[in-house]
Amino acid sequence: MVNYDLKSLLEELREKRPLVHNITNYVVMNFTANTLLAMGASPVMAHAVDEVEEMVSLAEALVINIGTLSKQWIESMFTAGKRANEIGLPVILDPVGSGATSFRTETFRSLVKELTLSVVRGNASEILSIGSDYVRTRGVETVHGAEEALETARTAAKEIDSVAAITGPVDLVTDGARVIRCYNGHPLLGYVTGTGCAATAVIAAFNSITSDSLEAAAAGLAFFGLAGEIAGARTNSPGSFLVALLDALYQITPEEFQEKARLEEG
Amino acid sequence: MVNYDLKSLLEELREKRPLVHNITNYVVMNFTANTLLAMGASPVMAHAVDEVEEMVSLAEALVINIGTLSKQWIESMFTAGKRANEIGLPVILDPVGSGATSFRTETFRSLVKELTLSVVRGNASEILSIGSDYVRTRGVETVHGAEEALETARTAAKEIDSVAAITGPVDLVTDGARVIRCYNGHPLLGYVTGTGCAATAVIAAFNSITSDSLEAAAAGLAFFGLAGEIAGARTNSPGSFLVALLDALYQITPEEFQEKARLEEG
Amino acid sequence: MVNYDLKSLLEELREKRPLVHNITNYVVMNFTANTLLAMGASPVMAHAVDEVEEMVSLAEALVINIGTLSKQWIESMFTAGKRANEIGLPVILDPVGSGATSFRTETFRSLVKELTLSVVRGNASEILSIGSDYVRTRGVETVHGAEEALETARTAAKEIDSVAAITGPVDLVTDGARVIRCYNGHPLLGYVTGTGCAATAVIAAFNSITSDSLEAAAAGLAFFGLAGEIAGARTNSPGSFLVALLDALYQITPEEFQEKARLEEG
Repeated sequence: MVNYDLKSLLEELREKRPLVHNITNYVVMNFTANTLLAMGASPVMAHAVDEVEEMVSLAEALVINIGTLSKQWIESMFTAGKRANEIGLPVILDPVGSGATSFRTETFRSLVKELTLSVVRGNASEILSIGSDYVRTRGVETVHGAEEALETARTAAKEIDSVAAITGPVDLVTDGARVIRCYNGHPLLGYVTGTGCAATAVIAAFNSITSDSLEAAAAGLAFFGLAGEIAGARTNSPGSFLVALLDALYQITPEEFQEKARLEEG
Repeated sequence: MVNYDLKSLLEELREKRPLVHNITNYVVMNFTANTLLAMGASPVMAHAVDEVEEMVSLAEALVINIGTLSKQWIESMFTAGKRANEIGLPVILDPVGSGATSFRTETFRSLVKELTLSVVRGNASEILSIGSDYVRTRGVETVHGAEEALETARTAAKEIDSVAAITGPVDLVTDGARVIRCYNGHPLLGYVTGTGCAATAVIAAFNSITSDSLEAAAAGLAFFGLAGEIAGARTNSPGSFLVALLDALYQITPEEFQEKARLEEG
Repeated sequence: MVNYDLKSLLEELREKRPLVHNITNYVVMNFTANTLLAMGASPVMAHAVDEVEEMVSLAEALVINIGTLSKQWIESMFTAGKRANEIGLPVILDPVGSGATSFRTETFRSLVKELTLSVVRGNASEILSIGSDYVRTRGVETVHGAEEALETARTAAKEIDSVAAITGPVDLVTDGARVIRCYNGHPLLGYVTGTGCAATAVIAAFNSITSDSLEAAAAGLAFFGLAGEIAGARTNSPGSFLVALLDALYQITPEEFQEKARLEEG
């Protein structure tokens, strides 16, 4: 068991209602905003290069997500990310589809190189694509297991002084030295679009409360996974699961979070 | 009590199924379209400068919403707005995030200056940002009460010959002379993204039926708030609330609307 | 009755989980992705000209949908479509709003002319707008019946060697020679945005399993319509209908699909 004070973390989050600035993809914007609201945080979506510096200055964390990527948005990601770095905000990166196209893989690698990142969250294929020896396999779907990606993640995390979070049946979080496994989750999460992206935003929300990014990543995945478990106990189909998931994000109490998070080190 | 014939207004709307053209933000497009469909109107989303004039010519009302703003979209907002003005369509403006960044504040002020607007709907901070002496406070979330924004709204409404609607725990609607308060609503509306934006679209739908913009704004907020009340009586969590809200928008009868709208003047 | 082996078709789809690449509109991206996931396929959304060729090469079918159209996206549609044609992938076109603005009508006609299309799915007005003698009537809503559009659809299907699917109270599918009618469906599908667009994506998913595009179109409309029927038997309002629809897409078994599809030839 990992000894995090998750109860206080969630309490503080709900009291502060941190503003999370998202530069994210079209598919998941609505669901991400609803996820952040349900858990007790505040979302804002803004991508224009004309305003991202000003908007991120009002925020407590920044999410950069490269799904539905296009050139104009990349400029804004760098602009917002650099400003966030200057003022010390956590920057959480979700390399959606990295490894599937060279456009995304190169963007992922550039963002990693030029920004100081707090957490990088992806599936195993996405995380593996950070290595220059990565060979593309089946595109946007992960074909690798989380354990397979662990060594790449450890090395990368150490190199870029960041935390890597690999989601899968069991999630792995590492800062290069320590490894935490998260056992919360539910298979139906794979039948709703944007659950990975939403988990990334949840990590960002926690990272605005604790500067320990390993804790924020582990807490975020445990919290989101726990909401999935609760939803999965109420229904067995994806439409009603989606609804129950948002309900659960809102309903989980700090005590319940502390009690039911299943995080293990090593 | 205000003496509006809300029963006939809703009856006529459901009979005519007015087409509402929305130039709105990415986060709320889906929810806005579903809101309009559920209440009995017809939505269309189109933003390309190549077609907005033609599209707005087919519509009965135009919504301009500046969330997820970018430069290319601003041009389309002006083009569509000017065409709507030429042909006498109501133009309803939602200044999402005005006051948070100068990009949005300036866009809001330009739209107000160059277009003839029927209704402007925002939270108190957004409405206050119309004044040149506005000092930014906490960004996209409102930190002002509706009553605090009332004088600014009255002055602005008079100056630009428009109706201002300030939403909050109690909504205020003014044409500069009269003030109507709307008491319908529910706290869970704050836990679902895009409810303000959807309320704006509902106002637009009513404004296509009645040319009395004060009535349209009051009716829109009462109708959407009443749907929130009904949803809030069925559930206490945001996921199922969102679902119940769409259900209620569809279920409210003209008689129920007339009976349960809580609008007061003065 | 039409003698398709729908049971095997759905079984094979759920086993293969085909990747469907969507270049689609902002309003329906999330719902389309959830529809594909729920039925057992895999969605990817990508629109940048920098990556569409590479992304479509990983996919098993391509959807091109012209809602919320803009110039930059048109280039990507052609680029992706040509690549899909080169490698023999089915390309399914949804001409949303064609007939409403000349921008959309011209784009529809150019796509038809320059790409080899497997299936074109639209409402009657959209399908009718393919003819150069089309006179616009009421914009984005269909004002024509499916039967009225049948002759245009037959001629067009023959000319472009494609399948035309016209959705309405009764859906019509034709390859120019044969005509199949689909009786599955529910009126509440008209109260949820993006159901037509989602049906198009479902056709694409089936077209990645069978190269018989007439079968894929008929199967797709029957499957989506059946999910609508099941949802409509559970609720009578659009919010909960939307949820029940996603549930049903996931729950329908291959046997149930075979048994309850209502397809008739002639």
